[in-house]
Amino acid sequence: MENTNLQDYSHKRYNILTGEWVLVSPHRAKRPWQGQNEEISTEKRPSYDENCYLCPTNTRINGEVNPDYKDVFVFTNDFAALQKDSPTFSVNDGLFKAESEKGICKVICFSPDHSKSLAEMEVEDIKKIVHVWQEEYATLGENEMINYVQIFENKGAVMGCSNPHPHGQIWSQSTLPNEVDKKDRHQKEYFNKNNTSLLADYLLQELEAKERIIFENDDFVVLTPFWAVWPFEVMIAPKKAKKNILELSDTEARNYAKAISVITSTYDKLFNTSFPYSSGIHQAPTNGEENEHWHFHMSFYPPLLRSATVKKFMVGYEMFGTPQRDITAEIAAKRLRDLL
Amino acid sequence: MENTNLQDYSHKRYNILTGEWVLVSPHRAKRPWQGQNEEISTEKRPSYDENCYLCPTNTRINGEVNPDYKDVFVFTNDFAALQKDSPTFSVNDGLFKAESEKGICKVICFSPDHSKSLAEMEVEDIKKIVHVWQEEYATLGENEMINYVQIFENKGAVMGCSNPHPHGQIWSQSTLPNEVDKKDRHQKEYFNKNNTSLLADYLLQELEAKERIIFENDDFVVLTPFWAVWPFEVMIAPKKAKKNILELSDTEARNYAKAISVITSTYDKLFNTSFPYSSGIHQAPTNGEENEHWHFHMSFYPPLLRSATVKKFMVGYEMFGTPQRDITAEIAAKRLRDLL
Ligand SMILES: O=P(O)(O)O[C@H]1O[C@H](CO)[C@@H](O)[C@H](O)[C@H]1O
Ligand SMILES: O=P(O)(O)O[C@H]1O[C@H](CO)[C@@H](O)[C@H](O)[C@H]1O
Repeated sequence: MENTNLQDYSHKRYNILTGEWVLVSPHRAKRPWQGQNEEISTEKRPSYDENCYLCPTNTRINGEVNPDYKDVFVFTNDFAALQKDSPTFSVNDGLFKAESEKGICKVICFSPDHSKSLAEMEVEDIKKIVHVWQEEYATLGENEMINYVQIFENKGAVMGCSNPHPHGQIWSQSTLPNEVDKKDRHQKEYFNKNNTSLLADYLLQELEAKERIIFENDDFVVLTPFWAVWPFEVMIAPKKAKKNILELSDTEARNYAKAISVITSTYDKLFNTSFPYSSGIHQAPTNGEENEHWHFHMSFYPPLLRSATVKKFMVGYEMFGTPQRDITAEIAAKRLRDLL
Repeated sequence: MENTNLQDYSHKRYNILTGEWVLVSPHRAKRPWQGQNEEISTEKRPSYDENCYLCPTNTRINGEVNPDYKDVFVFTNDFAALQKDSPTFSVNDGLFKAESEKGICKVICFSPDHSKSLAEMEVEDIKKIVHVWQEEYATLGENEMINYVQIFENKGAVMGCSNPHPHGQIWSQSTLPNEVDKKDRHQKEYFNKNNTSLLADYLLQELEAKERIIFENDDFVVLTPFWAVWPFEVMIAPKKAKKNILELSDTEARNYAKAISVITSTYDKLFNTSFPYSSGIHQAPTNGEENEHWHFHMSFYPPLLRSATVKKFMVGYEMFGTPQRDITAEIAAKRLRDLL
């Protein structure tokens, strides 16, 4: 390992994409845990649940009936956080500053099968989801009101997911969210200076170093970023800079689906449980600019730390100070790699 | 209300201290909840628990015996995230960037009584805690290695608190944590331009607007900040700019303790439960600089949203985009104010 200090002593690591730090305490992994244990649902879900508002042919709260869909099904969120038809306004009253924010929120059912998760789906079926993400990114992006399209999934009750039916969401909006704005600025700065993609250069360095790589195929790398915050955080990124998922060829889309399949199924093996996480794709804004500095990537932020029931709490110090982690990115990558 | 749009339509609000935004979806408060319910412990705790490693006279994991303390008791964290005696190093290897980070972590037992929380303590007893915070801030701050002292509390199992005995923590370290760095920059910029405290000017505007004020006394204001992220987030701040808690007179310290007592006991009334939160004090770094731009303040980030068992999840969109809230700061302030 390059620097054994990083495995022995408290230190902070820099996130080149956001410009923020993470505090790493490798010596602290042995701390005993006397706090809250999460509940695990061991209940085997049926393939169809008549009370699930996402299952095919069921009626949703607003009275709409889901079609008898056979693979992926998208609809507009019945309780969208962003409104489409609202007035444009801004508040600029001394130190009170606000702006109206419009948007469109959608729900994507990954499969008609209520019992499945991405981890259990075939690569070909995941590829169909990638295809729908591409369509939605393209269509929403063409809407003049929409300058950014955030694709994400909350998996598991511990991640606030209110329905176990396999699904993700898209929140698309007029302005760049905080995290996207940070990554936009740091990638742009690097691109303007070096004329190469920040993330492509980073991936080259990681592929050389090897210790944080979990999996790779011709087009994609799955790794624990050097600056990972969550215990088993993982990033999937295309080796060649692609600003968004529309730039994927058919083979690349398949290799992307394969990477998603590998990491989600490996996660499930780690603690022998359906592994909870939030995942999301950060990609170029749809603001009509070139955005050649953007290199899309998907991240997984899973909360579990030691077992199926003990998670990492990002609380007190983390909220007021800096995210903190106990096991290092290198150890996390090795544990996941060993399960492949 | 100043601007009814803010109560009706999705918008974002700007945090003048961090420079970041929060997405507000006032129309969404009526969304039905089908997700995870938190467990509440209704168990009445005894005043002394022989298995608690924080109770007086008990033995901690490392073999040390707690004294038979009568009010506040401080000790160095047995599983500190930051180490004191570690080598100084830095990694500057292409896009891998890391720095050693040293520090001292402490635990502060607020009371010998295992069953009490701040909400149930007398103002005079909370004032003793304020006094210990002052002593620790002063002593740690004098240490050459320490340039920032983060005082915080995690209350409740849902906030990762591993022991119900009333206690808080201090993590002090060599560099400024992410959140402190942001607030340092924004306060400095404003101070350099206006020669007044950003927060003092903001508080004047809030006291005029009234709708987000929950409580005030001669020296302190308790309010829901315009840019609050957590459903019932609250800030306590001195009306006059004070860069740190050492600048409080005896009367001011008492009025600060009173403000803490008011908000914590009001919280408990909201959902008829011992209200979980993380709280923390942001104040001037102890880096030997003047720091006249700093105005200390204490914030409470409580996760509960609708009841003792339904919390707000900061997941998916929030992790990849921007924090999002449903009820507005104005409604939250009113609900708390009405319980006084
Ligand atoms: O120090 P504790 O109470 O054991 O641990 C708790 O607070 C720490 C500081 O906010 C966090 O890093 C931990 O994740 C949390 O479980
Ligand atoms: O949209 P859902 O699944 O009802 O809600 C979940 O995801 C949203 C987007 O990350 C969050 O704002 C909610 O707090 C969470 O419970």
